[in-house]
Amino acid sequence: MDATSPKHRVVVIGAGFGGVEVVRGLAGAGADIIFIDRRNHHLFQPLLYQVATASLSPSEIAWPIRSIFKGRRDVRTMLARVDNIEPAEKRVILEGGEAVPFDTLVLATGARHSYFDHPEWEAHAPGLKTFDDALEIRRRILLAFERAELEHDPERRAGLLTFVVVGGGPTGVELAGTIVELAHDTLAADFRAADTREARVILVEAGPRLLPSYLPALSDYARQALERLGVEIRLGAAVDHIDEGRVVFGDHDVAAGTIIWAAGVRASGAAWLDVDSDKAGRVLVQGDLSVPGDPDIFVIGDAAHMTRPDGSLVPGIAPAAKQAGQYVARVIRSRLCGAKVPPPFAYHHQGDLAQIGKRRAITDFGWIRFRGAIAWWIWGIAHIYFLIGVRTRLAVALDWLWISLRNQRSARLISDPGSVSQEG
Amino acid sequence: MDATSPKHRVVVIGAGFGGVEVVRGLAGAGADIIFIDRRNHHLFQPLLYQVATASLSPSEIAWPIRSIFKGRRDVRTMLARVDNIEPAEKRVILEGGEAVPFDTLVLATGARHSYFDHPEWEAHAPGLKTFDDALEIRRRILLAFERAELEHDPERRAGLLTFVVVGGGPTGVELAGTIVELAHDTLAADFRAADTREARVILVEAGPRLLPSYLPALSDYARQALERLGVEIRLGAAVDHIDEGRVVFGDHDVAAGTIIWAAGVRASGAAWLDVDSDKAGRVLVQGDLSVPGDPDIFVIGDAAHMTRPDGSLVPGIAPAAKQAGQYVARVIRSRLCGAKVPPPFAYHHQGDLAQIGKRRAITDFGWIRFRGAIAWWIWGIAHIYFLIGVRTRLAVALDWLWISLRNQRSARLISDPGSVSQEG
Repeated sequence: MDATSPKHRVVVIGAGFGGVEVVRGLAGAGADIIFIDRRNHHLFQPLLYQVATASLSPSEIAWPIRSIFKGRRDVRTMLARVDNIEPAEKRVILEGGEAVPFDTLVLATGARHSYFDHPEWEAHAPGLKTFDDALEIRRRILLAFERAELEHDPERRAGLLTFVVVGGGPTGVELAGTIVELAHDTLAADFRAADTREARVILVEAGPRLLPSYLPALSDYARQALERLGVEIRLGAAVDHIDEGRVVFGDHDVAAGTIIWAAGVRASGAAWLDVDSDKAGRVLVQGDLSVPGDPDIFVIGDAAHMTRPDGSLVPGIAPAAKQAGQYVARVIRSRLCGAKVPPPFAYHHQGDLAQIGKRRAITDFGWIRFRGAIAWWIWGIAHIYFLIGVRTRLAVALDWLWISLRNQRSARLISDPGSVSQEG
Repeated sequence: MDATSPKHRVVVIGAGFGGVEVVRGLAGAGADIIFIDRRNHHLFQPLLYQVATASLSPSEIAWPIRSIFKGRRDVRTMLARVDNIEPAEKRVILEGGEAVPFDTLVLATGARHSYFDHPEWEAHAPGLKTFDDALEIRRRILLAFERAELEHDPERRAGLLTFVVVGGGPTGVELAGTIVELAHDTLAADFRAADTREARVILVEAGPRLLPSYLPALSDYARQALERLGVEIRLGAAVDHIDEGRVVFGDHDVAAGTIIWAAGVRASGAAWLDVDSDKAGRVLVQGDLSVPGDPDIFVIGDAAHMTRPDGSLVPGIAPAAKQAGQYVARVIRSRLCGAKVPPPFAYHHQGDLAQIGKRRAITDFGWIRFRGAIAWWIWGIAHIYFLIGVRTRLAVALDWLWISLRNQRSARLISDPGSVSQEG
């Protein structure tokens, strides 16, 4: 690598939290940066469940990638799908055949939800990773209520008003808490034939407790708080079967109009590289987050198996991806100017946060913990702080104010319902 | 009709401006109201072009129908498609076969864009009536710039940066003005290979002037203002042919990556009734807006051929639909309580408004006219006033402030771009 060349080309694939931090961290480094994503926007994934539950609009948690970096003449954004990577030739092949050469490559392609050995479940139980996913889940939730209103058979109506969330991690907990409030509060006065307060929300978790990566005391609090809201929680219950409108777990065989998958993810992008990965598809990276045998290719965030000094896995959350992106930018900068390479990546866990219903949350910063209403304020302020731009922050604060004061959720729109009848 | 019956059933089909006013106007009338629409929301159509141009989000100009009438226990909202109407049996047949009986029926089904004798043009030149239409047009506009950025051939790039709007009415004028500002201002700093300031926006109108229903002086002003913004205007040019990425009008054969249809509409719903309609499909209604031979069936708004005392057609705009809805509600109320039936419907024209670019508009109230910046303020305040709810008004005002001050448009999101390459 010629450290003085002004033309050193860095290609970053994936505009999630990790990729954006790499590009930010390379400001003024003199590199020629190509930023590739198959979508035109960076998404604030921690609030995606609020789009899925009609609380926020997509545009409040998504920003055009090229507008984030409009002032950076060293960054060229490409809306393109990657077809392959040729490490030996040092180039990325785009769909359509165009080759994009690189000196340094950063793979920050994230993860998709995974159905283990049951890909056929996806059609009946969508997962939540992109804003198209969120709009599809929103459509299913809102249509379930509409269909229940039209249904004359009490048993089928009860099935339509049953919502099953699979997976008791933060996304599952936040989805279940929001859906139950949508049904019991927001929609209660809107329907005539269907009583939305009779809606059942069932949260299914295979392990012994919710939020398995959090402190047990916070898991207990989350369970109790969700149960007070009316969520039915089934712990130690692995899902055996999912079908259209039906889910089987433990001894239960439940008719459910809406099933949402928040149980597992699988890393994207590793298949392009001839490297070892763990069973969730995450690339086994070295201490500096480069791949073994190729110091010019880095993998970060959910696509990487990053470890802590004690050997445990770095969690797949936004702060971890951001720290990895900042770290890799420092490594690349130090190489470009011939400076000393930083010590291996050391993840610093800043804390755990989860919202539970409208005005409750849990926050754990290690040295201090909160739960309940005060945690909700901390949760809300922290999330608004991490959004991009003043307008977005005002808009989200306004929406949350309205939910809090008036139970109104702003984005209760069904995009093209198609046929409304059950068969449709 | 039994005027004292508390069970008199009014079925209203279509939740546009007309239908909503009928239901509003029947508050406290003692009727049993069924409100049917195939979508779950009422849409503020006059601002739909702002969704199509990434200025506003769908949730800012759309409200769930059942939440508008949540306090009205006499109103039952059904999300359903109408399959047929049986006037003799006095019932509406829904898709799926369910029959909904009525004593009085109001058809307020609006209009769809129409391609005259060329339905095959629709795939290449979408129109703008629903929010799905708006999101499709937004997707096409934003993808055109993304593809231009990736295109190496200068001629093809120029084609991708050419936008043709067909139809010089208010929607066409507002679309053309907003697209040219999107290209020349909002996006200018965001792209590297493509120079968005070279984008061409062509507005094609078959007639001799823009805004044909407005005063000629305002048409002239609109033309000059659009030309100053950089829009190319072709008057007296009928479109002869539209194909994928190509439009032919007069002597011109233009390669255009994006073509939008704002030229003609055709009424919906008349086919369900065995009544006479005009050549745009509008039902020829009587003075009280009922159909000839059936006093219990009313047709209002864009679905009806409503005339003024001089025989001229009432324009297909929101205030006309609202007035018709209010009028029909009065007729139904007077029949229910046995009061004197109101005189025939008399449309009162309140004025003409159109926005031309970011800070210009024309407003004509008959007794006073404005154009330019002051008209833009009147236009903006009038539109915010007619939105529903404080939250929506604040959100739209915030978005307009950001567009005005910072040229930022909040909703620049491409939903599932699929394949980005031209062939895709």
